[in-house]
Amino acid sequence: RVNGDRLWDSLMDMAKIGPGIAGGNNRQTLTDSDAEGRSLFKTWCDEAGLTMGVDQMGTMFATRPGTDPDALPVYVGSHLDTQPTGGKYDGVLGVLSALEVVRTMNDLGIKTKHPIVVTNWTNEEGARFAPAMLASGVFAGVHSLDFAYNRRDPEGNLFGDELKRIGWVGDEEVGARKMHAYFEYHIEQGPILEAEDKQIGVVTHCQGLWWLEFTLTGKEAHTGSTPMNMRVNAGLAMSRILEMVQTVAMGEQPGAVGGVGQVFFSPNSRNVLPGKVVFTVDIRSPDKAKLDRMRAKIEAEAPGICDALGVGCSIEAIGHFAPVTFDEKLVTSVRSAAERLGYTHMNLISGAGHDACWAAKVAPATMVMCPCVGGLSHNEAEEISKEWATAGADVLFHAVVETAEI
Amino acid sequence: RVNGDRLWDSLMDMAKIGPGIAGGNNRQTLTDSDAEGRSLFKTWCDEAGLTMGVDQMGTMFATRPGTDPDALPVYVGSHLDTQPTGGKYDGVLGVLSALEVVRTMNDLGIKTKHPIVVTNWTNEEGARFAPAMLASGVFAGVHSLDFAYNRRDPEGNLFGDELKRIGWVGDEEVGARKMHAYFEYHIEQGPILEAEDKQIGVVTHCQGLWWLEFTLTGKEAHTGSTPMNMRVNAGLAMSRILEMVQTVAMGEQPGAVGGVGQVFFSPNSRNVLPGKVVFTVDIRSPDKAKLDRMRAKIEAEAPGICDALGVGCSIEAIGHFAPVTFDEKLVTSVRSAAERLGYTHMNLISGAGHDACWAAKVAPATMVMCPCVGGLSHNEAEEISKEWATAGADVLFHAVVETAEI
Ligand SMILES: NC(=O)NCCC(=O)O
Ligand SMILES: NC(=O)NCCC(=O)O
Repeated sequence: RVNGDRLWDSLMDMAKIGPGIAGGNNRQTLTDSDAEGRSLFKTWCDEAGLTMGVDQMGTMFATRPGTDPDALPVYVGSHLDTQPTGGKYDGVLGVLSALEVVRTMNDLGIKTKHPIVVTNWTNEEGARFAPAMLASGVFAGVHSLDFAYNRRDPEGNLFGDELKRIGWVGDEEVGARKMHAYFEYHIEQGPILEAEDKQIGVVTHCQGLWWLEFTLTGKEAHTGSTPMNMRVNAGLAMSRILEMVQTVAMGEQPGAVGGVGQVFFSPNSRNVLPGKVVFTVDIRSPDKAKLDRMRAKIEAEAPGICDALGVGCSIEAIGHFAPVTFDEKLVTSVRSAAERLGYTHMNLISGAGHDACWAAKVAPATMVMCPCVGGLSHNEAEEISKEWATAGADVLFHAVVETAEI
Repeated sequence: RVNGDRLWDSLMDMAKIGPGIAGGNNRQTLTDSDAEGRSLFKTWCDEAGLTMGVDQMGTMFATRPGTDPDALPVYVGSHLDTQPTGGKYDGVLGVLSALEVVRTMNDLGIKTKHPIVVTNWTNEEGARFAPAMLASGVFAGVHSLDFAYNRRDPEGNLFGDELKRIGWVGDEEVGARKMHAYFEYHIEQGPILEAEDKQIGVVTHCQGLWWLEFTLTGKEAHTGSTPMNMRVNAGLAMSRILEMVQTVAMGEQPGAVGGVGQVFFSPNSRNVLPGKVVFTVDIRSPDKAKLDRMRAKIEAEAPGICDALGVGCSIEAIGHFAPVTFDEKLVTSVRSAAERLGYTHMNLISGAGHDACWAAKVAPATMVMCPCVGGLSHNEAEEISKEWATAGADVLFHAVVETAEI
């Protein structure tokens, strides 16, 4: 079993970097806080005797050697970046539990045939630079390096420039590494495990996603002196599209979600009708047919809504992954580990996207999940118990050691 | 008649300060650009032989003396501040035409019994610090100085601190000045004059306004892993309120408008359902009963919309003025001036709020308007012709000189 206290202490130490305003964290990717978090993580990896490699996307790979020089490594990780008002566990738990796995192996003097690589993927959240899971996406060949470097944050900064600025451009070619297996441990970020009173989620699938960025073009005009019948009201069109997205998602229940998290009005002045409204629709389903049908419905209905108001409408797909089925053998090793350790468990479909979803394209992959209070995540109030954290790390430890072969 | 070329040149010179990104201006109140605009205006006032007084709200009063030491001054002015993506004429035309009136009087050696005071009111737009027409509101006793000093911009800066920072806190008590009359010349900011092919709007009334700031409280949560039936979706509630405001305004046609120019999602991240949405509803009507009925309907319906989604809803009235009827005698002097000068004219109700609306509380007041292309304002593409500008300034000149008595 892992050392739950040590894991928890590391989580609390990392949470001191990039503190939020309400008890959580704002350690967005490629900020100074991200750099600080990376340094602390590197120190811990050094102390655990790991060798650090960094690729051109800034992803950190800390290797514990195996006994067979020809054996491909087992990768274990997640991400240290957070949402602007994020929690202390989303991503971080997975990276620091991977570290706890090797710390425990060191304690117990366990040697494995396959090396273990503790991994911290760059920009999983996609909050600052869309899309999410950017570095693992390049790793898996979904995006080009050039595409990634040219992503812009809302202030117009380039991903490539910011990666250089914080000093974490590595020399390794992205995706050159080959994996024997990839494990990721993460908080559920949803309500199911807690509601079902289970300690461990055995993640069999991950739902797919589309991010559709809408740009609505209205006519900037005075809210007072512009008669109702002369308005080209992009804000009203946005409202109607939000309602339509809700209707489309409700029409695909159960097993589908749809919503909007980000809206920009321009110029965003109280007495100016917006000339431009930009917002992102996020739709997801584990069922590819449902997912694509939702996208088709939304793209079919939005132009009519806009036309009726004279508003221009352009839609760009800025994020996508298809539903993923995780590797049968690894899933079984997670389930058996939970059984063996006496933890209650159930099968789960991941509601959120994870680097494991991209890794699954190039290697056998799976995930372990633990509950989080009220299913709350992407919220500074995100919370888990030390016991939950420890149980999942125990399962991760067992599954990893089994897969890496003693 | 005034010198239209000189007026136009001054407009173009002022437009160089705080340029926008699309041919207009971003010279928001109490910014460095505002300070620069004020200095240029002061230089011009000095050159015209005027004496500058500044009150504690930073409002600038440039006096041309009258012949009767006991006669109260005729005030003529508007504002030099702009929207973040504003035009070159909204407000500026009124201040620089007032200056052109005294320049023309100087050219022609006209002496008046009543002094003339060219006026630049601080923070008419209300874009940076709500409410609009802040300094004239304090002048008219509608707001306290303390209230005004404690207004905050979106970055949290205080109005009082920013006024001090740019160096324009005057020593005059606000509202101590007494007015014989107040004239304001402004672009229409609406489509009527152009559609009716009239050169001059004789402004008889100004419609009233309510600004209602909504704060909706939802639950910040992951867009992917939060099931539809567990969402507390403040963004959806906002959408439904926007649609409801549209319905309420359409139900009071003609003679009423309602819309939303400003929306803030928090944390405004693509994969986070907003925990908080703040937005401002702007409703207006020249008919007080309609205006208050719209407010009552909106405030009655919004809580039910939010309740149905579990969203918290608080509403604060952050801006208000009742419909205004301008002074009969001054309105007549504007209409006669237009007649005398051979300009086509019509009666008009101002769709926008103006400092004249507050001045009307403490003095006889009225306005002159000229058309603007496509009725467009609060838009960098705002445009007028030199001929339109000149015609209105001519009318202003005649009405002011008549009221100030030769
Ligand atoms: N786990 C997580 O929150 N990832 C961000 C990408 C997503 O929105 O699913
Ligand atoms: N004239 C003008 O745009 N004033 C700003 C206040 C308002 O919104 O009416």
